Amino acid sequence: MKPLKNDTLLRALKRQLTEYTPVWAMRQAGRYLPEYRAVRAKAGSFMALATNPELACEVTIQPLRRFDLDAVIIFSDILTIPDAMGQGLFFAAGEGPKFKKIIQTPADIEALPVPDPMDDLRYVMDAIALTAKTLAGAVPLLGFAGSPWTLATYMIEGGSSKNFARSKAFLLNQPAAAHQLLDKLAQATVAYLAAQIDSGADAVQVFDSWGGVLSPAMYREFSLPYLQQIVTGLRQAGYAETPVILFSKGVHGSVLGDMAASGAHALGVDWTTDMNEARQLTADKVALQGNLDPCVLYADDAVIRREVQQVLNAYGEGPGHVFNLGHGMHPDMAPEKLGVMVDAVHELSRK
Amino acid sequence: MKPLKNDTLLRALKRQLTEYTPVWAMRQAGRYLPEYRAVRAKAGSFMALATNPELACEVTIQPLRRFDLDAVIIFSDILTIPDAMGQGLFFAAGEGPKFKKIIQTPADIEALPVPDPMDDLRYVMDAIALTAKTLAGAVPLLGFAGSPWTLATYMIEGGSSKNFARSKAFLLNQPAAAHQLLDKLAQATVAYLAAQIDSGADAVQVFDSWGGVLSPAMYREFSLPYLQQIVTGLRQAGYAETPVILFSKGVHGSVLGDMAASGAHALGVDWTTDMNEARQLTADKVALQGNLDPCVLYADDAVIRREVQQVLNAYGEGPGHVFNLGHGMHPDMAPEKLGVMVDAVHELSRK
Repeated sequence: MKPLKNDTLLRALKRQLTEYTPVWAMRQAGRYLPEYRAVRAKAGSFMALATNPELACEVTIQPLRRFDLDAVIIFSDILTIPDAMGQGLFFAAGEGPKFKKIIQTPADIEALPVPDPMDDLRYVMDAIALTAKTLAGAVPLLGFAGSPWTLATYMIEGGSSKNFARSKAFLLNQPAAAHQLLDKLAQATVAYLAAQIDSGADAVQVFDSWGGVLSPAMYREFSLPYLQQIVTGLRQAGYAETPVILFSKGVHGSVLGDMAASGAHALGVDWTTDMNEARQLTADKVALQGNLDPCVLYADDAVIRREVQQVLNAYGEGPGHVFNLGHGMHPDMAPEKLGVMVDAVHELSRK
Repeated sequence: MKPLKNDTLLRALKRQLTEYTPVWAMRQAGRYLPEYRAVRAKAGSFMALATNPELACEVTIQPLRRFDLDAVIIFSDILTIPDAMGQGLFFAAGEGPKFKKIIQTPADIEALPVPDPMDDLRYVMDAIALTAKTLAGAVPLLGFAGSPWTLATYMIEGGSSKNFARSKAFLLNQPAAAHQLLDKLAQATVAYLAAQIDSGADAVQVFDSWGGVLSPAMYREFSLPYLQQIVTGLRQAGYAETPVILFSKGVHGSVLGDMAASGAHALGVDWTTDMNEARQLTADKVALQGNLDPCVLYADDAVIRREVQQVLNAYGEGPGHVFNLGHGMHPDMAPEKLGVMVDAVHELSRK
């Protein structure tokens, strides 16, 4: 492994001092970039793109050619693990992800295999290895996975959901089966993220995209313990030095404090919690990543700069801030707006 | 006006002692009830139902025939005010509300009239008067309106929105025009709610359904001041004794404390904030309404009872709790589940 030329992100994730606030953006590789759309069209489908290491590497690196980013994140999908468990992931046109099989009974969960990432998810590892080699240490490469609860929602609902009625009813009515499913997913995720690190990922993020739809009590019972299991599992497997970022979108208040005690290096924070409040809740136990409202990128450049300054001010003094959006880029955003944000973060955060 | 036979809700909203915790449910009049669907089919369309005082009265009272509720809420829609401003509300099949006109420029806002509720929204007042007469004091009748920010989102987006890209960009790029729009909507809402009270509403709720999509800073600039304007406007117009409930769905943390200082009698709380935490944040300055996750009504009866007990425990001792869901009933819910919840609240909250 070549040493990193720019390790600002990794130092910030470990709450070490940096010369400026590092920045990347969720979904920075994606549809808002015309060069992404061209590769996606060539691949033919989302899954054809995600499972082709050369093309996945290409779209991962595309945003780095345009913007002065401090990290790239491997192009993939959170639903690779349930797919590798045999659930049959597919994307219906204009409808988002769907699964051919739906989890309904304890027997369905009992039958789920825990995939071997180096075998069943080889395409992800190959994409990471190729991207790490191509980057040649320019910036850190982030790996990622979905959280057990978030993956479980798709597996129980059969796809995306508006109200999470089926998955919440499953937790409430069949808690033992739910815990078995979440435990299997956490085991699979530890192995998956360990393999990503072995393949060249410098840090990993767990996307708990639907953590915030649970009440705090249900979050503490059904999501947080499995995030904890992933953090602890990676540490026990010898990956204690690789930063882990937990992002439970929509989670706020005292739950952020509980997350900070999980042993993770950093927490993602969405834009509905002020960074100052997030910092108080987490008591500087972790680095914090965020949290500009993505919709600010629809605004005029001067407004973007002002709002970047507000987020930097809200975080305040001291190490441990990674700048990011509070959620992903939208497909209809103008690419140059991300450049305005990135440059503003660098310029305004330098002392 | 006949005296109320059951004024438990009003006493709880004023933080007076009650014999038990009063309970109602958002969207308790709605599609999950077969008798509602029958009236809706007879009316032909949602707007035909909402603008017919006899039918609106009928569906308002329907849930009271099934469940031991402590309040009913007038059947109407939050978008009546923009419609009365001439924006042309209509409902496309399966697509939610839409407006024929879209707010794009300061001139569009300048041209908006402030409606006279007794004239332009007479159908709402007639429905309230008829419902109050029909109830004959059985339980309190709630009136309601949408918050200025929430109404503005529909007027700027032209309907529902996923990301609120246009409306947020409008706030950021054209703040003076946005403030003018929000001020006009607040003025209209004060007159509208005052007319509802004059017509027979015993308390009113302001639904800030999209308050929670704003960052705390933007919420404090573009939503909260106009909720405040409504509360203050009603008090100055002589309605200080009528309880006002503010419900900004998705709003949490220190912002709840700011809302508690608005002079409103009560705040709605969604299920993502623990009632105990909400109570600490609001320091018993206001009553709190909520906050069972609606999806709990998909669970087994014993689970519903257990989760009701958890919400009651989380609120804890002392007056000022109005039990409700953290959001509205869903159309696919089994009606009898609401009965399980209502009975559990009454039984478990009696000392």
